Amino acid sequence: MSPRASNTSAKKTYSYLGPEGTFTELALAQVAEAKGANHRSVAHVQEAIDDVISGRAFRAIIPVENSVEGGVSATADALAITENVRIYGEYLVPVTFDLVARPGTVLKDVRTVSTHPVAYAQTRAWLSANLSQHAHLPATSTAAAAAALLDNDFADAAVAAPTIVKHYGLKTLARNIGENKNAQTRFIQIGLAGPMPEPTGRDKTSVIVELPTDRPGALLEMLEQFAARGVNLSRIESRPIGDRLGRYRFNIDAQGHIADSAVSEALMGLHRFSPKVLFLGSYPRADKQKSVHEGNNSNVEFADAASWLKQLKAGK
Amino acid sequence: MSPRASNTSAKKTYSYLGPEGTFTELALAQVAEAKGANHRSVAHVQEAIDDVISGRAFRAIIPVENSVEGGVSATADALAITENVRIYGEYLVPVTFDLVARPGTVLKDVRTVSTHPVAYAQTRAWLSANLSQHAHLPATSTAAAAAALLDNDFADAAVAAPTIVKHYGLKTLARNIGENKNAQTRFIQIGLAGPMPEPTGRDKTSVIVELPTDRPGALLEMLEQFAARGVNLSRIESRPIGDRLGRYRFNIDAQGHIADSAVSEALMGLHRFSPKVLFLGSYPRADKQKSVHEGNNSNVEFADAASWLKQLKAGK
Amino acid sequence: MSPRASNTSAKKTYSYLGPEGTFTELALAQVAEAKGANHRSVAHVQEAIDDVISGRAFRAIIPVENSVEGGVSATADALAITENVRIYGEYLVPVTFDLVARPGTVLKDVRTVSTHPVAYAQTRAWLSANLSQHAHLPATSTAAAAAALLDNDFADAAVAAPTIVKHYGLKTLARNIGENKNAQTRFIQIGLAGPMPEPTGRDKTSVIVELPTDRPGALLEMLEQFAARGVNLSRIESRPIGDRLGRYRFNIDAQGHIADSAVSEALMGLHRFSPKVLFLGSYPRADKQKSVHEGNNSNVEFADAASWLKQLKAGK
Amino acid sequence: MSPRASNTSAKKTYSYLGPEGTFTELALAQVAEAKGANHRSVAHVQEAIDDVISGRAFRAIIPVENSVEGGVSATADALAITENVRIYGEYLVPVTFDLVARPGTVLKDVRTVSTHPVAYAQTRAWLSANLSQHAHLPATSTAAAAAALLDNDFADAAVAAPTIVKHYGLKTLARNIGENKNAQTRFIQIGLAGPMPEPTGRDKTSVIVELPTDRPGALLEMLEQFAARGVNLSRIESRPIGDRLGRYRFNIDAQGHIADSAVSEALMGLHRFSPKVLFLGSYPRADKQKSVHEGNNSNVEFADAASWLKQLKAGK
Repeated sequence: MSPRASNTSAKKTYSYLGPEGTFTELALAQVAEAKGANHRSVAHVQEAIDDVISGRAFRAIIPVENSVEGGVSATADALAITENVRIYGEYLVPVTFDLVARPGTVLKDVRTVSTHPVAYAQTRAWLSANLSQHAHLPATSTAAAAAALLDNDFADAAVAAPTIVKHYGLKTLARNIGENKNAQTRFIQIGLAGPMPEPTGRDKTSVIVELPTDRPGALLEMLEQFAARGVNLSRIESRPIGDRLGRYRFNIDAQGHIADSAVSEALMGLHRFSPKVLFLGSYPRADKQKSVHEGNNSNVEFADAASWLKQLKAGK
Repeated sequence: MSPRASNTSAKKTYSYLGPEGTFTELALAQVAEAKGANHRSVAHVQEAIDDVISGRAFRAIIPVENSVEGGVSATADALAITENVRIYGEYLVPVTFDLVARPGTVLKDVRTVSTHPVAYAQTRAWLSANLSQHAHLPATSTAAAAAALLDNDFADAAVAAPTIVKHYGLKTLARNIGENKNAQTRFIQIGLAGPMPEPTGRDKTSVIVELPTDRPGALLEMLEQFAARGVNLSRIESRPIGDRLGRYRFNIDAQGHIADSAVSEALMGLHRFSPKVLFLGSYPRADKQKSVHEGNNSNVEFADAASWLKQLKAGK
Repeated sequence: MSPRASNTSAKKTYSYLGPEGTFTELALAQVAEAKGANHRSVAHVQEAIDDVISGRAFRAIIPVENSVEGGVSATADALAITENVRIYGEYLVPVTFDLVARPGTVLKDVRTVSTHPVAYAQTRAWLSANLSQHAHLPATSTAAAAAALLDNDFADAAVAAPTIVKHYGLKTLARNIGENKNAQTRFIQIGLAGPMPEPTGRDKTSVIVELPTDRPGALLEMLEQFAARGVNLSRIESRPIGDRLGRYRFNIDAQGHIADSAVSEALMGLHRFSPKVLFLGSYPRADKQKSVHEGNNSNVEFADAASWLKQLKAGK
Repeated sequence: MSPRASNTSAKKTYSYLGPEGTFTELALAQVAEAKGANHRSVAHVQEAIDDVISGRAFRAIIPVENSVEGGVSATADALAITENVRIYGEYLVPVTFDLVARPGTVLKDVRTVSTHPVAYAQTRAWLSANLSQHAHLPATSTAAAAAALLDNDFADAAVAAPTIVKHYGLKTLARNIGENKNAQTRFIQIGLAGPMPEPTGRDKTSVIVELPTDRPGALLEMLEQFAARGVNLSRIESRPIGDRLGRYRFNIDAQGHIADSAVSEALMGLHRFSPKVLFLGSYPRADKQKSVHEGNNSNVEFADAASWLKQLKAGK
């Protein structure tokens, strides 16, 4: 067998925030091109990013936003200090929580509930009502909390994704105990910078923008870079830069693709305005909604304006 | 002894996010009027808020922002759904981390380090360099991680505030291991709505504002409510409303006091513009810097404009 | 008869930009309260303003805007340097022009046409087509041009309002020769500052605003004083301040009445922002259209916001 | 001599708003390339524009702005309806007025003063003080008023430029009688569209922009097209479009040259935003002041942003 054939047959690796049985695995299941590839479970977001940068993984699937708890700050902050990584797709996963325990445990026996703090926040109302005396043992993930039930007896039950019982010998004590029945988590597929997904008319562009220091109204000015080109934002989230209180960077999802003239001009505007702007990629929206640029900011209008300008410059 | 005398002599209670030995205790130590009062340690932010609402505590001290990890989302979200609570003061506490262990433990023996995830994020660089093989056991607070060292041997060391060794029989293995030597946490003092601190010229006003739905440019319009009155923002932080992805509320600290005309007009502007705006209070800035309203927006200018208007209306 | 009775029976005087037979007379005819009063024809706008200031006239009717030629700059500039004068009403007069001549003159005999430069601009197309060799003799008004035909033979014909033939022994050579068949002139009724017309929901407020010097974006900031309160402008016209090139004042008509909260707050905003703002009055719109304030800026919303603020300040 | 050689040697013609002896002639004297060319005096602004369009003149010099009286509306309106004409330069002329009369006339004999209405407005204060009983006879220009003194005796004196006595047998009765001693008139040189003056760093770009109909805040949006690219305006003047009251076009002078990236992007933004935008040219400023684009909007910053974008699009 030739090395070339060997290369061709080699499977690509997709890392994902594990362990097995977490919601991230459900996001990975939505990635068509990851079917039949290697799936590699990692312990935290930074490890997934490191896999991509080192080439150990072709791509990684990590959570980026949760409709209840907000931005997953570890992801936002890790991306902000990483060069050369891009987003290639986004995926929405409905978030439902079950209470699981070792076989033989019944609800009234539960004293200590282990789970990730985010999952705990989403189920605290149910737990307080049904287990008023329970204590919470934080875990690094819902799946880790469930798995640990089989390793030790620090906790009596775990809050985890319904699919967890497919992976571990646990039983479900209560279903769908989350407060918000419409909760979703948004995941992204990241990889090294490379050819971007083609524009589809239903796209999103993500950037991280720092504001000029000590300039009142800088946020307003930054937003006008989008508004002047009719580009709508679907998300804006502030994160502290971390060097001192009062300095923020903004994680922004704008409607449209870098191949759209309105978006590319807005990006250049940000680049001039901001001391640091990080482009994270253009990719199809998970909600499949159309990305419309307000006003007269279609590609055709941009092209018309450019040829008008060209004529003017030629003295016509 | 009359009941009245008894009432008068009864000490007020200040709840704080405990346990003893956390950074919140250092913030509480800055609250002059809490000297000699009862100090009540609570397990989480919601419990502190509940103490205030039920009257169990007169006031509570809770963390609100950390220069490294950003807004303490539990506080932001709890305040957003609470009526009738106000902020009465803010306090800055330098954040330095030590590594502590049971007496007899030496650095090279440490395999598992327990601490709160935020503290872990701030010390991971040092831990990775000096304890490359360590595992992290999350805890609900740095103090809880330290206290647990004396209860069980799940962890070998804890990352905690330097003062922790005053409360527990632990010894310090390494000092000041945090990445950011200027890190600070900002705490607030909350209480039931009542008379506000007097304006000092160095004040801050906090609000939580929801944006009108599905209106492109709504954030920009909201910011213009401040800009049109020359009011600068010292902090803006988005948090998901939680009913579905894509809906945000904004936690805002504006410079100035509700008694300042520029601020009160901006607040009324927000009230008209926003489907929901929550006033959290006006209180002196911890950094003691002057709160200047840009442009001609002093109280004197506002008063001049009001008497001019009055004259015009009187037909003069 | 007592002086007092005499005073009571004395008729009020309405000055108007004359002479008799101009369009201003048609505007005066729309002023209900001027029926049966003294009508005093004056030679120029400043004289009309002087009549009002000196008390010689109770009110004066002067042109302020012409849909073809723009602002009547003499009026705009005279008002800008006058204190204590207010606008009490506005009136729209359709502008149609006829060519008139001495009896016996026929069209082909006309060599020289006299009229006011504004009227000439509006009829030049017809005159060029029908009297290709004509010369233009400028006059101070269309009526003066017509009257002069009977005094001397410098001109053979005049362009004037159709009603001119009621005042002078002239005949009409051609009707409705203006280029723009929808042309209108807008007139205002001015008087000394005093009680304003009551708000009708269909009102207009006029101001003259200077911009702060040498501040890029000052015009934008000024417009935001209106926008932040949802007040729409129906007219904005720049005029040079006159001390040097590059300095402008803006004559602005905003929708709404000073009794509307949105308008009064915007006025106070202008007063703080601008080095000089002149209030010219609130009065019913001639076009009878409703003056809607954009967004949530009704009086009810303003009152709600004010009582909300009052409660907050009371510590509730 | 061949016709071709003849053509080559033929002098170019510069039309100017005459007659001889007006301020426009002083502007023409500032045009270096017009030295030794044919100078053609025309009767009104439209004739000058027609000369340029028909090719009768290579260029024309016309007044565009007067620091006392504002925009010369005939010029603004004529340019607004003309295609294919460009501004090639601007010139500032100090405006001083003298009172001139036929030899033998003394001041106290003067009953009727003839002059252009603009000049009359600027000298009315002096005339009222020194000739309290005088009448005003309007003329099409100051020079025409002066020339007519020798043709007929309708007027006894004329207000005109000091140089008028070089052209006509008149004598000066009083010097520098204008109210504003710093008055200036700004003139422009127009020609058919062709190669533009090179950028000098001290340039100006003129456009005429219509606003989208019935869109509150359209003026603000238009101004943001400049602001988002840091382009300052040195002049904005509204003129009625003329089809009905309430519709305006804006004559704008922006700092910078179409060859400056900030200006060209702003122009394209206007082209998309506005139903009609007319480019009048980029040319050196008469006041020789530097045209700075606010913020980070230099050509270098634009080029950096463009190459950054190019790299991003290439997937790097």
